[in-house]
Amino acid sequence: MASTFTGVAASPGFAIAKAFRFTNTQYTPQKLTIADAEEEAGRFRQAIEKAKGEIEDIRRITEQKLGVQKAEIFEAHLFLLEDPDLVDAVLDKITDEQWSAEYALYEVTTGVVDMLLELDNEMVRERAADVKDVSGRLMSHLIGKPYATLSGISEETIIFAEDLTPSDTAQLDLNYIHGFVTEIGSRTSHSAIMARSLELPAVVGIGTMPASIADGTLVILDATEGRVFIDPSEEVLAQYREKKQQYDERRAQLKRLSQQPSVTADGEHLELAANIGSIEDLAKVLENGADGVGLFRTEFLYMGRNSFPSEEEQYQTYKHVLEKLNGKRVVIRTLDIGGDKELPYLELPKESNPFLGLRALRLCLKREDLFRTQLRALLRASVHGKLNIMFPMIAVLSELREAKRILEEEREKLRLEGVSVSDSIEVGMMIEIPAAVLGADHLAKEVDFFSIGTNDLIQYTMAADRMNESVAYLYQPYHPSILRLVEMVIKAADRAGIWTGMCGEMAGDLTAIPLLLGMGLNEFSMSAGSVLPARELVGRLSKKEWAALSEQALAMGTQEEVKQFVEQRSSV
Amino acid sequence: MASTFTGVAASPGFAIAKAFRFTNTQYTPQKLTIADAEEEAGRFRQAIEKAKGEIEDIRRITEQKLGVQKAEIFEAHLFLLEDPDLVDAVLDKITDEQWSAEYALYEVTTGVVDMLLELDNEMVRERAADVKDVSGRLMSHLIGKPYATLSGISEETIIFAEDLTPSDTAQLDLNYIHGFVTEIGSRTSHSAIMARSLELPAVVGIGTMPASIADGTLVILDATEGRVFIDPSEEVLAQYREKKQQYDERRAQLKRLSQQPSVTADGEHLELAANIGSIEDLAKVLENGADGVGLFRTEFLYMGRNSFPSEEEQYQTYKHVLEKLNGKRVVIRTLDIGGDKELPYLELPKESNPFLGLRALRLCLKREDLFRTQLRALLRASVHGKLNIMFPMIAVLSELREAKRILEEEREKLRLEGVSVSDSIEVGMMIEIPAAVLGADHLAKEVDFFSIGTNDLIQYTMAADRMNESVAYLYQPYHPSILRLVEMVIKAADRAGIWTGMCGEMAGDLTAIPLLLGMGLNEFSMSAGSVLPARELVGRLSKKEWAALSEQALAMGTQEEVKQFVEQRSSV
Repeated sequence: MASTFTGVAASPGFAIAKAFRFTNTQYTPQKLTIADAEEEAGRFRQAIEKAKGEIEDIRRITEQKLGVQKAEIFEAHLFLLEDPDLVDAVLDKITDEQWSAEYALYEVTTGVVDMLLELDNEMVRERAADVKDVSGRLMSHLIGKPYATLSGISEETIIFAEDLTPSDTAQLDLNYIHGFVTEIGSRTSHSAIMARSLELPAVVGIGTMPASIADGTLVILDATEGRVFIDPSEEVLAQYREKKQQYDERRAQLKRLSQQPSVTADGEHLELAANIGSIEDLAKVLENGADGVGLFRTEFLYMGRNSFPSEEEQYQTYKHVLEKLNGKRVVIRTLDIGGDKELPYLELPKESNPFLGLRALRLCLKREDLFRTQLRALLRASVHGKLNIMFPMIAVLSELREAKRILEEEREKLRLEGVSVSDSIEVGMMIEIPAAVLGADHLAKEVDFFSIGTNDLIQYTMAADRMNESVAYLYQPYHPSILRLVEMVIKAADRAGIWTGMCGEMAGDLTAIPLLLGMGLNEFSMSAGSVLPARELVGRLSKKEWAALSEQALAMGTQEEVKQFVEQRSSV
Repeated sequence: MASTFTGVAASPGFAIAKAFRFTNTQYTPQKLTIADAEEEAGRFRQAIEKAKGEIEDIRRITEQKLGVQKAEIFEAHLFLLEDPDLVDAVLDKITDEQWSAEYALYEVTTGVVDMLLELDNEMVRERAADVKDVSGRLMSHLIGKPYATLSGISEETIIFAEDLTPSDTAQLDLNYIHGFVTEIGSRTSHSAIMARSLELPAVVGIGTMPASIADGTLVILDATEGRVFIDPSEEVLAQYREKKQQYDERRAQLKRLSQQPSVTADGEHLELAANIGSIEDLAKVLENGADGVGLFRTEFLYMGRNSFPSEEEQYQTYKHVLEKLNGKRVVIRTLDIGGDKELPYLELPKESNPFLGLRALRLCLKREDLFRTQLRALLRASVHGKLNIMFPMIAVLSELREAKRILEEEREKLRLEGVSVSDSIEVGMMIEIPAAVLGADHLAKEVDFFSIGTNDLIQYTMAADRMNESVAYLYQPYHPSILRLVEMVIKAADRAGIWTGMCGEMAGDLTAIPLLLGMGLNEFSMSAGSVLPARELVGRLSKKEWAALSEQALAMGTQEEVKQFVEQRSSV
């Protein structure tokens, strides 16, 4: 009988196929004590060796099928099998408490997972999924039951499961598996992240599944709205077949653009780049064919931990990103902490208005130690790709000069140490404070590029906290007052012969893009998922035409007029 | 022997004269019970009648000597002598407890004063001074000792006292008394406020006075630095005689300007107005010959109390101010609460960044009841003078339109009620948000005037909380980015044919004035004490010359360059 469930739309798309219920129930061992601890430890070591062999196979196959990036997660699993926090802890329990290997494994891994899940952090949650996955695999070897796998499915299927582990998702054969539904999870759980990365429609967190979802039942997955239709009527089926077709066509059309340049209808080349916060975001950047990284928010390297990342750790991260981008531009922003982003281990006085306080570069100029460490890591990494260094939250010339002075000091120190540094690093700044817009002519003479940060620029220009619901009506990106500031920046940059980018929400907004194009913006940096729709739009627009239209928009009095005008003219 | 004391510079100036120690020691009665309560109550009532007679005399003499304003305080004293909280409370104690009139008076007034002093509020503190003064006078009649008075002094004198009451300060004969020094008090105590109002040099809070300050000792009072020299050397004396002479000459020179118009060296007329927060500030506005009130901060009517002021109460206040200004322009700003100004009885959600939150007009548009009450009071008062209504914290056109719509609704309601309203009220807005500057061309078409609020404008333009010490270096009023915004506003206003004022700190700043004049600012509103120095400076400046010089300043890159440039050219 037809029924409908709703959950979290974790990864958009549509699927129509038969249900397959996948069970990989966690085995909960009893508390047993054993006589021969030596023998029991041997049994555990054997399980580890078997698991290693299996994971190496999966890693190899995944690399062949899905590429190096997707296979990397199994490197992490192999590391876990050598991690003393896990392995030695289990062996200790076996030796000291005389627990069975199963119970020791269960106790140790449950403790680790619970601890990790207590930290409310996406990366840590993925780590918990890894521990669960590895421990399930070890348990299957200890109890002599095969670890259930999705690799054998050879029929068009939508998977239904309590949750999916990294092993599960890595083994999904996308030729047959068209989507999945889980009982637990949120937009940030491992399975949701993986689904988005695989571009596989998924609805998570629908709650305990009823028996009505038997294997082979026909299912519609609307992972755009978060709905699951079990045994739908012919009418609903027809309707969703059409929706799916439209969606897939559009997607395929965009996909074709991923290897194309970003060029307007009248032949102007632009840079459509992506914003990232960590190495994990790189896969999507490459998949969507972004022209580069327009903003690497390095503060995420500092968050969700207990101490500052070392110079070496930062160097490795920046090097990795530069190498992956393979010669495309990577704009790395120096630490932007403060405001709504706190570091518990950096003890700062409480401020009455943190958005107007000691943030970002202001803080770095007071805490030079932090700043110098990051700059050294950046300079060292510069030889591995096309690095741009960008300073955030500059209001006045003296701040820029001070930041550049410190950068040059570190460059000179490295030179004396014999460390090579690229001599083609571009140094630029965010434009996100009204004072910087008004002083852009002077600032432009002392940088290689500008990148407009619209989220903060709008907040300060409107004097309205962008997180405060009471004044949300003032967050007006298309307001002529905002557009006029953007135009002032671009004009000042043009006169000084430098380029201007934008890395706020607005850069990927299909209503804003025609205007920004018309005003002469050179680079647009957005979330990776917005790159292809933006590239498609840009391909339909004439820069010349929008130069004239944007002048009209700049003369208007309200955001409403501008919005209506653009939507009529660009038929977005 | 020479010695020096330091205290709080409560009212600037210099005095050189002989010390006179004035003692009006508080009499502390013993706890006595009396036999005939009826007789005792009669004795107290007699004391009240005598005190009333005395106060009425003082009131009359003060009015003749110092004017109605200065005499008003004695109206308050007469009220107190009829206040049941005081009089009935004492009579009850006599009747119910059989206390002596002296002890009852002492107990009741000490309790009231302590309670008032616990509230940390300037107006309440003055009220405490009144209660102490009246109670001292009553006590003197009860114990049959004369209430010590300063009215008989006929020699050039500097008064030394524990503190001075309102009766004391009202009776100071300024022909002989050249200054005073008190043991207790702060810049906001009654005696300090009174000294500033009398323009009498005063140092308060020097602590317990040593015996070395005998009557007749020669004393130098440097009330600019807060220093008191007892029996100074000839050298120090000579030095301070010169300082005093220079100070007095400069003062006299400025005084002469108080009845002059504000006009530049090349004959341009300007408006040099004053900012006020309450009726109490009016005396200084008139004394300094301000050309009007450029900003009445009405939020002070709402602060330091437990409920909103009624329409009638507000009407009376606005009427009073308009009448006192006698046809000169009075710009009254509608309620600007929020940010750093809280009303405990207006319960608002706590905000993460109150300066970027629901403040001022934003709040009024959500709490229309408050707004409409104030607008009605303003409209009704408009017939009593030259009223300008000004809306604060407007970012976008829709807010202005909404505020004006509500104003017109209230005007229409009053018309239907038959209440007369002036038809020459000017309606304007503050320019204190960058978005309003950028949209000034559109806003200018829908108002009669602009007034630039530099304190907030600088804060938002620099994205730096003006109360936060860590980012204080960004409070740069002469920064070209700020000056450019000011120029944009003035130009937009000029094109629309409306006038532009300024009511932030900057308007009274002698370094900023030449530039503002050059850019074409029409009205400068400042603290009353800055009006005469500003008028003097303006008289030495050529608008035409500064129009050219300010263009040069606008092209500079840093505040330092601008400051140096202006100081060289205007020889301030």
